[in-house]
Amino acid sequence: LVVRTETPFNAGMPPATLVDSQVTPIERFFVRSHAPAPEIDEAAFRLSVGGATEKTLGLSLGELRDRFPKKTVVATLQCAGNRRAELSAVEPINDQVQWDADPIGNAEWGGVPLREVLQAAGIGEGALHAAFTGLDGVQEKGTTFGFGGSVPIEKAMSAEVLLAYEMNGQPLPLDHGAPLRVVVPGYIGARSVKWLGSISLQAEPSDNHYQARAYKIFPPHVRADTADWPNGLMLGELSVTSAICRPAAGENVAISPVTVQGYAAAGGGRLVERVEVSVDGGESWAVANLLGEPNRWAWRLWEIRLDLDPGEHELISRAWDSAANTQPEDVRKIWNFKGYMNNAWHRVTVNVAG
Amino acid sequence: LVVRTETPFNAGMPPATLVDSQVTPIERFFVRSHAPAPEIDEAAFRLSVGGATEKTLGLSLGELRDRFPKKTVVATLQCAGNRRAELSAVEPINDQVQWDADPIGNAEWGGVPLREVLQAAGIGEGALHAAFTGLDGVQEKGTTFGFGGSVPIEKAMSAEVLLAYEMNGQPLPLDHGAPLRVVVPGYIGARSVKWLGSISLQAEPSDNHYQARAYKIFPPHVRADTADWPNGLMLGELSVTSAICRPAAGENVAISPVTVQGYAAAGGGRLVERVEVSVDGGESWAVANLLGEPNRWAWRLWEIRLDLDPGEHELISRAWDSAANTQPEDVRKIWNFKGYMNNAWHRVTVNVAG
Repeated sequence: LVVRTETPFNAGMPPATLVDSQVTPIERFFVRSHAPAPEIDEAAFRLSVGGATEKTLGLSLGELRDRFPKKTVVATLQCAGNRRAELSAVEPINDQVQWDADPIGNAEWGGVPLREVLQAAGIGEGALHAAFTGLDGVQEKGTTFGFGGSVPIEKAMSAEVLLAYEMNGQPLPLDHGAPLRVVVPGYIGARSVKWLGSISLQAEPSDNHYQARAYKIFPPHVRADTADWPNGLMLGELSVTSAICRPAAGENVAISPVTVQGYAAAGGGRLVERVEVSVDGGESWAVANLLGEPNRWAWRLWEIRLDLDPGEHELISRAWDSAANTQPEDVRKIWNFKGYMNNAWHRVTVNVAG
Repeated sequence: LVVRTETPFNAGMPPATLVDSQVTPIERFFVRSHAPAPEIDEAAFRLSVGGATEKTLGLSLGELRDRFPKKTVVATLQCAGNRRAELSAVEPINDQVQWDADPIGNAEWGGVPLREVLQAAGIGEGALHAAFTGLDGVQEKGTTFGFGGSVPIEKAMSAEVLLAYEMNGQPLPLDHGAPLRVVVPGYIGARSVKWLGSISLQAEPSDNHYQARAYKIFPPHVRADTADWPNGLMLGELSVTSAICRPAAGENVAISPVTVQGYAAAGGGRLVERVEVSVDGGESWAVANLLGEPNRWAWRLWEIRLDLDPGEHELISRAWDSAANTQPEDVRKIWNFKGYMNNAWHRVTVNVAG
């Protein structure tokens, strides 16, 4: 893993390695943390479930395993800050992790469907959002609190949202949120709260800093001091994206045809319908081969072989989802001062040997 | 209505009039037909429901009204060919209706939730799609058949899909599909089959020409004779879009500030989160005021007052949806030979008097 920050721990793999397998091995799965991993006494651990519920629950890990069905979901997690470095190249975005196309991975998550737990607690009146709070200690503005976020109740009650205690068939690793994390497929990674301590059903989205203020996008001309924070676009479902992983940026390629490989992902359960690659600045596009099978919650790896003349070439990828949304052309036009949701056409310049 | 073609009847209002009301009056609602309106004997009419169902049904209009609950849904319908004229300006798209930003409208539809009828028939094994066929007579490739299309069974079973027999509290007009039409909110208008005659549950999408071949998008370099038809992107949910309705293109505006008004719509139940307007080619954007209330199935009208110097100005709008998808910048980069889903930034040039 390429370490971005040590404390809290943030790291990812070189993008070229992401396309090695449909399911990302744990040791290669990016880590995104807002606080150091907390020490949690698993014997004493109780997941608190309350708010607008008919009763409150305090569930031990044993109860979560024994009282509720276990389900596995193959799902991609992606940080809303994916490809922030390209935004920072337009205008620097400070105090944020400078991610390349690396904070994305696909795993088989095992755990309890969240809706089973919510049904056991009973959905109360006015329960419009499920808010999650972690047991970590984020420091922000001089206070310490658990990282948190929320999803609408319809999403919380969907079949795909898990309280996960396993990853790729292994016990969930500490860096990925052990002993228990939320996994919200199709949403920005920040909603998949790690080191989960409590769930609250409530009428409004979470008032946690990371829901109420961070993870919002603002128009390009807005800066922190001019932001109308309550009216920022509160992120939820991911937008459609793709990235070229191989060849890597700046790579010298010995021979043509060149095999170009990458990933594509669509948010909210939409499917990746098509990935296109251009070598002429977007004037014409070739259609890449989608690998594997369609899966509403998982990325789609793709590849294409291109005949390229010797010299320097800019390779561009763009994906289309099942709602016919595609990626914006120009990263400058979607720049935002927090550096989120850069799904502009992905561009990689390579050199083909003469 | 501005008539685009007399037979079949296709017509829409000048875009400037679309923003007059949140609910579009019937007499101003665009009409999109692939065949002349059929003469249907309402007394003899029976809606056929079959395929992968536990039993087949033949439901009279009286039975549909009396045996099933009635529901109203305010929903926007939008043709996949909205703004085709802009695509044709890049390269002509022949034999298609040359729509401006007009084939869109928002109505209160009244009728039976489709799922009530499907539940009465019983969902059979292998029922993955609900296919609809009209009683009109489309002529295509020397044969005559009813216009048709399908939606996935999850959508068919959702709360918002109706078999509508009323529009804005009135009996459904013939041009809008009387006596019965499907209304599929959030999907391209073509799935809201008019003059509905039969519903079939089945394992595959409809093999009707308008699902299996038309209403697909292909990459910009593909033409009819090079299209890999089965692998086109089969349209379903709409992508995010917006349009400037007032001032109209080419309009001479007497005074500044200028009130700019338009519509925005997001597909698949996503919300319009933000509409931005630029007067400098997309370098900077002002945020428009969204009118009315959020509604997953209805358009969002918007307005903004702009101070403009005397002279010519290009006004541009773009919308963002709740999955952080936004509109593509350049219509040339999404050109497709069938002319669908043009959701590029909408550009209107106006003159401000000196």
